[in-house]
Amino acid sequence: MTAHWIENQKNLMLFTGRAHPELAEAVAQELGVEITPTTARDFANGEIFVRFEESVRGSDAFVLQSHPQPLNKWLMEQLIMIDALKRGSAKRITAILPFYPYARQDKKHRGREPISARLVADLLKTAGADRIVSVDLHTDQIQGFFDGPVDHMHAMPILVEHIKANYSLDNVCVVSPDAGRVKVAEKWANALGGAPMAFVHKTRSVDVANQVTSNRVVGDVAGRTCVLLDDMIDTGGTIAGAVGVLRKAGAVDVIIATTHGVFSGPARERLSQCGAKEVITTDTLPQSKEGWDNLTVLSIAPLLAKTIHEIFENGSVTTLFEGSA
Amino acid sequence: MTAHWIENQKNLMLFTGRAHPELAEAVAQELGVEITPTTARDFANGEIFVRFEESVRGSDAFVLQSHPQPLNKWLMEQLIMIDALKRGSAKRITAILPFYPYARQDKKHRGREPISARLVADLLKTAGADRIVSVDLHTDQIQGFFDGPVDHMHAMPILVEHIKANYSLDNVCVVSPDAGRVKVAEKWANALGGAPMAFVHKTRSVDVANQVTSNRVVGDVAGRTCVLLDDMIDTGGTIAGAVGVLRKAGAVDVIIATTHGVFSGPARERLSQCGAKEVITTDTLPQSKEGWDNLTVLSIAPLLAKTIHEIFENGSVTTLFEGSA
Amino acid sequence: MTAHWIENQKNLMLFTGRAHPELAEAVAQELGVEITPTTARDFANGEIFVRFEESVRGSDAFVLQSHPQPLNKWLMEQLIMIDALKRGSAKRITAILPFYPYARQDKKHRGREPISARLVADLLKTAGADRIVSVDLHTDQIQGFFDGPVDHMHAMPILVEHIKANYSLDNVCVVSPDAGRVKVAEKWANALGGAPMAFVHKTRSVDVANQVTSNRVVGDVAGRTCVLLDDMIDTGGTIAGAVGVLRKAGAVDVIIATTHGVFSGPARERLSQCGAKEVITTDTLPQSKEGWDNLTVLSIAPLLAKTIHEIFENGSVTTLFEGSA
Amino acid sequence: MTAHWIENQKNLMLFTGRAHPELAEAVAQELGVEITPTTARDFANGEIFVRFEESVRGSDAFVLQSHPQPLNKWLMEQLIMIDALKRGSAKRITAILPFYPYARQDKKHRGREPISARLVADLLKTAGADRIVSVDLHTDQIQGFFDGPVDHMHAMPILVEHIKANYSLDNVCVVSPDAGRVKVAEKWANALGGAPMAFVHKTRSVDVANQVTSNRVVGDVAGRTCVLLDDMIDTGGTIAGAVGVLRKAGAVDVIIATTHGVFSGPARERLSQCGAKEVITTDTLPQSKEGWDNLTVLSIAPLLAKTIHEIFENGSVTTLFEGSA
Amino acid sequence: MTAHWIENQKNLMLFTGRAHPELAEAVAQELGVEITPTTARDFANGEIFVRFEESVRGSDAFVLQSHPQPLNKWLMEQLIMIDALKRGSAKRITAILPFYPYARQDKKHRGREPISARLVADLLKTAGADRIVSVDLHTDQIQGFFDGPVDHMHAMPILVEHIKANYSLDNVCVVSPDAGRVKVAEKWANALGGAPMAFVHKTRSVDVANQVTSNRVVGDVAGRTCVLLDDMIDTGGTIAGAVGVLRKAGAVDVIIATTHGVFSGPARERLSQCGAKEVITTDTLPQSKEGWDNLTVLSIAPLLAKTIHEIFENGSVTTLFEGSA
Amino acid sequence: MTAHWIENQKNLMLFTGRAHPELAEAVAQELGVEITPTTARDFANGEIFVRFEESVRGSDAFVLQSHPQPLNKWLMEQLIMIDALKRGSAKRITAILPFYPYARQDKKHRGREPISARLVADLLKTAGADRIVSVDLHTDQIQGFFDGPVDHMHAMPILVEHIKANYSLDNVCVVSPDAGRVKVAEKWANALGGAPMAFVHKTRSVDVANQVTSNRVVGDVAGRTCVLLDDMIDTGGTIAGAVGVLRKAGAVDVIIATTHGVFSGPARERLSQCGAKEVITTDTLPQSKEGWDNLTVLSIAPLLAKTIHEIFENGSVTTLFEGSA
Repeated sequence: MTAHWIENQKNLMLFTGRAHPELAEAVAQELGVEITPTTARDFANGEIFVRFEESVRGSDAFVLQSHPQPLNKWLMEQLIMIDALKRGSAKRITAILPFYPYARQDKKHRGREPISARLVADLLKTAGADRIVSVDLHTDQIQGFFDGPVDHMHAMPILVEHIKANYSLDNVCVVSPDAGRVKVAEKWANALGGAPMAFVHKTRSVDVANQVTSNRVVGDVAGRTCVLLDDMIDTGGTIAGAVGVLRKAGAVDVIIATTHGVFSGPARERLSQCGAKEVITTDTLPQSKEGWDNLTVLSIAPLLAKTIHEIFENGSVTTLFEGSA
Repeated sequence: MTAHWIENQKNLMLFTGRAHPELAEAVAQELGVEITPTTARDFANGEIFVRFEESVRGSDAFVLQSHPQPLNKWLMEQLIMIDALKRGSAKRITAILPFYPYARQDKKHRGREPISARLVADLLKTAGADRIVSVDLHTDQIQGFFDGPVDHMHAMPILVEHIKANYSLDNVCVVSPDAGRVKVAEKWANALGGAPMAFVHKTRSVDVANQVTSNRVVGDVAGRTCVLLDDMIDTGGTIAGAVGVLRKAGAVDVIIATTHGVFSGPARERLSQCGAKEVITTDTLPQSKEGWDNLTVLSIAPLLAKTIHEIFENGSVTTLFEGSA
Repeated sequence: MTAHWIENQKNLMLFTGRAHPELAEAVAQELGVEITPTTARDFANGEIFVRFEESVRGSDAFVLQSHPQPLNKWLMEQLIMIDALKRGSAKRITAILPFYPYARQDKKHRGREPISARLVADLLKTAGADRIVSVDLHTDQIQGFFDGPVDHMHAMPILVEHIKANYSLDNVCVVSPDAGRVKVAEKWANALGGAPMAFVHKTRSVDVANQVTSNRVVGDVAGRTCVLLDDMIDTGGTIAGAVGVLRKAGAVDVIIATTHGVFSGPARERLSQCGAKEVITTDTLPQSKEGWDNLTVLSIAPLLAKTIHEIFENGSVTTLFEGSA
Repeated sequence: MTAHWIENQKNLMLFTGRAHPELAEAVAQELGVEITPTTARDFANGEIFVRFEESVRGSDAFVLQSHPQPLNKWLMEQLIMIDALKRGSAKRITAILPFYPYARQDKKHRGREPISARLVADLLKTAGADRIVSVDLHTDQIQGFFDGPVDHMHAMPILVEHIKANYSLDNVCVVSPDAGRVKVAEKWANALGGAPMAFVHKTRSVDVANQVTSNRVVGDVAGRTCVLLDDMIDTGGTIAGAVGVLRKAGAVDVIIATTHGVFSGPARERLSQCGAKEVITTDTLPQSKEGWDNLTVLSIAPLLAKTIHEIFENGSVTTLFEGSA
Repeated sequence: MTAHWIENQKNLMLFTGRAHPELAEAVAQELGVEITPTTARDFANGEIFVRFEESVRGSDAFVLQSHPQPLNKWLMEQLIMIDALKRGSAKRITAILPFYPYARQDKKHRGREPISARLVADLLKTAGADRIVSVDLHTDQIQGFFDGPVDHMHAMPILVEHIKANYSLDNVCVVSPDAGRVKVAEKWANALGGAPMAFVHKTRSVDVANQVTSNRVVGDVAGRTCVLLDDMIDTGGTIAGAVGVLRKAGAVDVIIATTHGVFSGPARERLSQCGAKEVITTDTLPQSKEGWDNLTVLSIAPLLAKTIHEIFENGSVTTLFEGSA
Repeated sequence: MTAHWIENQKNLMLFTGRAHPELAEAVAQELGVEITPTTARDFANGEIFVRFEESVRGSDAFVLQSHPQPLNKWLMEQLIMIDALKRGSAKRITAILPFYPYARQDKKHRGREPISARLVADLLKTAGADRIVSVDLHTDQIQGFFDGPVDHMHAMPILVEHIKANYSLDNVCVVSPDAGRVKVAEKWANALGGAPMAFVHKTRSVDVANQVTSNRVVGDVAGRTCVLLDDMIDTGGTIAGAVGVLRKAGAVDVIIATTHGVFSGPARERLSQCGAKEVITTDTLPQSKEGWDNLTVLSIAPLLAKTIHEIFENGSVTTLFEGSA
């Protein structure tokens, strides 16, 4: 036998894009590792340059990038980082997208539209990603857009724990802002000890982005503390309108809970003034509490750190991923 | 110039599997073409053999297969037909699956599950399909599972037309059997002239197939004729239960409308005896009215024929596909 | 250096489809491992559902499925299991198909036919299989249909050992039922100590499945014990006819040996009454000796177990695979 | 024969992104076609939405996008448009990138870098582009990054024609701003009637983007009108420095000619004040002459229109593409 | 509608490598087209350079290459030509390999061998071939190695016609030189009016290439004119030995017929002196009759021309391809 | 948990083609491993056969092949070896091409040409290569042709060390034989302590291979020892001409340094008689000093050995690869 044998080891390396380095730092601390030093800068015309300061050869690489504005830039940065890892001989590349961009374009609403959420999955694959980690995808089917393993994590336990610690559950009611989220609301209702449920009817305009008409409450909310939830809040129009509808319908308090606080344009003003007692979100996107007293930001970092640990250690614990991982 | 030039023509060829040849015949008649003669048989051990009796070289081939029981056999037959067309030099291959198999497994409900609906899309692609035509996919996101064009047709206009022709709309109410279908119900309500809506709460067991618990009606159905709709009805338990709940809630009549009448196991008995006035479905799957008086089967053939015509003629008419094609 | 290092280990996990769980059990016992608990069931309309009860993350997964009737169902089940393993982050997936389905359709016999054996290889690849293990492929070229490693095992040593243990080799003659199997017969003749050979001429109908005309013996069989062999026996017409021809030609006894006892339709009756002294096969497909006294079933499990062991341990022993692995 | 035959026609459709619609308009006018009406807008969080207002089924689609700042956004828009065309059944998709983004990152300058120019080619392919048209790629090798036809057009004839029409060639000298462009300068020298050549030595810093040190002239420029050329001018530091060096070396006049006027950051100020008599560029990127008197912008639209025409008509004229198409 | 419509035409272009230009010329004459002028030369170190002298844009390109010695060079030339066609925007590329190289390595005879015949198919696909045309593949399964249409032509009718025209069939006997070719011999026997058959036993050495031991005749050849056939004759050892065996067994005359006259090394001497009355082959490889009086070379060009014509015209005639196309 | 765990090890195996086994031997000695015994031979018609004499299952395989004449044969041999490794279950396959064939055809110089350097990268990928190692690619962009890691090594340190050891650097001048190599010359000038630089203008004929016209020196070489360098020397015309030009321009001595001594046709005569004091090259290609006194061959083996070691050990040392790996 002419083969030359050695022991095989494997090494975890954590990388971050520039969109939300604080989240990566928090994940690194949870994991007890350091982020691999990386040079990243913009050329004068906007082209992104990336170089890793250490060898990545043979590594089990995790590339964390958040996707706030300018979202297309941060997506491209992540693709470029993945390309550099592939060409630098990383052994396995896991793309972590706490907030999956273009998740709302997960189907053709009408003819001659793209399915951009599938496109994003294909771009990640093409660049060299072997697997994806994301949190609370807009629809579960997006898992099927990627040709490989997708670890789909849920922020609900984190958000629920906060509510349990700060509110009495006796009088709580779970409210979905539209019909499409009722199944999610059912899971919350169970997690909050079998709380009653309600929904708000809304009509989303196909032609004008983010324009929503919300109307009446289905279910009984009078005298209750409503937990109003959504996977993401963008301009906040739907949610702010729903708060008004709930208050009119007799809700005592409204607590808003959302995984992805996009909070574009008028969202901060709308939500801080809509009458909700508290707006709870996570830091899948960078958040600022400045000028927004009733905003609570819970960290997603421990969940991401545990997920990375499980993936790296090859899943000796599976309980973490119950749901869909 | 050494090139030898000729006029380019193109030719439509229609093929059918053995699962539901009557549907293909009806489509052929609508189109004014003949189905290409095909030898298809089973070897003694169940292997399928297929051979086309005419040259398929250069053709624009449409391969229609329905997917009733035994569903895996008919899927495999379609894959084998596509392979034979690819190797026989068909120019373009369109797989027509009126009822898309495994559409319900469109996500991982829990960890370590397949996403079989994506797998089916990949198998079709691998065999050689360039495009897919289907009717009323279980979720719109399945379009994104295929790497190519998907023409997603809707049976609603056919079903609605029948209802309009046979019932007074004055007192109609559109009912979704569960929360996940409310958006579809909204489209129906609009198509039926702004009819009111209602839903039935149900809990589907994750562990036992087809076991459903249906409970209370949300919305006002008393004194109304309810149009209860679903994309597909399998064992009929949910729907039959919903009829009972609606009757209890004061509904005058219940009309069931579904695109895909799977009608497995006890479905025929359940639905014919559940008290619904009429069960309306299409022939995306083979149907028999034998011993089921209140079953109405509307033909999907004209819709498929128009779709094939548009694809072959390269879309001089787009109105057909409004929605998502 | 920011990399976090740990020792690398690897773990073997064995999975089985529902077609022939006894074989998987036997393999597991030989290996000294347990089959990973798996939920598999049929939905009412025939769709298959699969879920693994343990984490498969990082595993070296072996998915054993036999392919008796209904063959297309069991193939689809294996594809779905492979998809679930891929999405569940198995590190390497080996599909074990003791009897490779559609192996006879390994070429276009005439124009406009599929090459289904290639299609099966592509479907396995698409679902996520990294490698294939099979036993006695109908033609060796099928190895080349898969884009990856194929471990092609041979049952001949098992069958020959049984013959040596039970018959005197002094008067043995190896007989091929048709001209295409003469090369295989030569290997047997060598393994049986340089036994003489003979063949039976046959004409297989291209148009009608399994219809065979067998005629005369080429070679001298008078007064000899004939070992009549084939890779697979389906309806048994060819083989039963060959027995008759051999008896007429003066053979004292005829022993039938085949790796894959498909035994479709009239096979059991034909073979038990054809005058052969013993029919020897393996359990690559489920076998029943009920009502068939002269059937001997030898277990393929030790061979599969050794193969799995070699693949998992990375081939420290190569002697096992001599021939073509 | 069951095939249904019709004449085959083909249709050209032109699409444009939002980065530089004036260029697309000019191309459309040259071609005598209209741009297909397209809805494109940004969602509040920066996600791009695209929908075509007409059927694109069967079309020979040309998707023109320029890549000024914010470059990553416009690249993503083009990818999304291509995806929508693919899913909308366009027959062939040609991506036109007059200025190829990330062309400078065409190799790993040091270890652990990406090759972003290859990545861009792969992203276009993944989205669905069948071919690429570009103008004056930074290096010719980028053609080899795309797995398909690349029509690589050259702006030199347009630029040279302008110089010939406005300057006496008697005293002209062609100057490359660095050693890497000398071969291109040779082609210019030939096109300008065998003009003499010179180069400027420069050192580009690997660590800091766009930082350049230019020094001495190689070749005789004293008393001459220098045509200083480059494929692209970004911040203008190199070129402005070269003008100074040439003036010091006795050049009478300096004319700057570049295909891609990126003109980032201080470029407009530097170039308008560097002492060059004229700066000639094209509109591969949007240009504004406001406050920059000596800037001349020549239109690339006729060249792109001719290229599209040749591609659509299948190359009855090849002279256009001499060079590398 | 903004689409610009024109009639679609298609054009056939024929290309040839340098291995056997006479064959391409003959095919061109049969088709009534001219071979597209091509520059092809070797660089000093053996690298091949190819350039087409006319635009190939949009063409239906047929690339004919024969594969005599040095076979690897001619294969590489064909791959390079296909790459140039792909990058030059040919619409469809058909690779014609009258003699498929590496066809004998169509399986792993023992472990750790390549399957070079599959590799060749994959290399052609990678370079850009859409389809393959070949003549008398060593085994039919090689069709399944290519992921696309393979038109597999047979030279038997050409060879049989010559025999019928020159020999009385009354006393003819068809002989296979080994057991593996008996099925082919059966087809010949039918084509020659139901002639009797015989075989020669041979043992081919696995360890030493082309070393063969031939021994005894099975079947009755005494007093007959034997037609001894093989798909290819390389060094001629087997065939020459078979002639001797047949003569000893009483054959009156022996006629050798083979599609592919490779005739390596000692073949010309062996075959011209082995006692065969005539050696009949085709020009799938370049042939020279110099110094070999009893060699007859029949042209394969008409068959290839007809095949090209059918492919280009999209198969209005299918009878040509009976067998396996 | 049903998983069966073992320690994971990895093993290095080194393979060599037949083009330059001495280089592989030298690399093996540096690494302290043995080359895996391999059977490789030519069939009579030029087809190559390869078989490994030991199991390669699970190995980290390195396949070294040099590419002298007949270059296409050696490339095909390497592809076949890679295929055999893939099918033999090697875990990772690294193709080592010290001299990358077809590197000069890295772009379309004119229309309708191949990009053979990209084709070679694709062929390696298709056969099964996971990564490439090469030395001094003709252009750095070739790295981007391969879809995976490319370790691009540089021979400059080896060549420079020899010059430093044998010549005084006081009077040295670095000369590029054409404008395209000036950037490389700059690196050399730095490595030689900031030596001055010069270039020779040349015009390479596009139409006739290897025909070059060299003319005047740019820069001051009078009285200096010139180090004339190029990545590869083929027929030697350019370089020999440059020596003459340099001597005429007053150079005292000329030392030629090149990584790849192709030395085709008249090269040996030209270079040994051109007046150069020494010609220094490496053994990336087989070299013979016979009849060429002033040829110095430095071994590339230590560099390749170190590279293999780093790749196998996963890059604990990165300094080796500075530049572009």
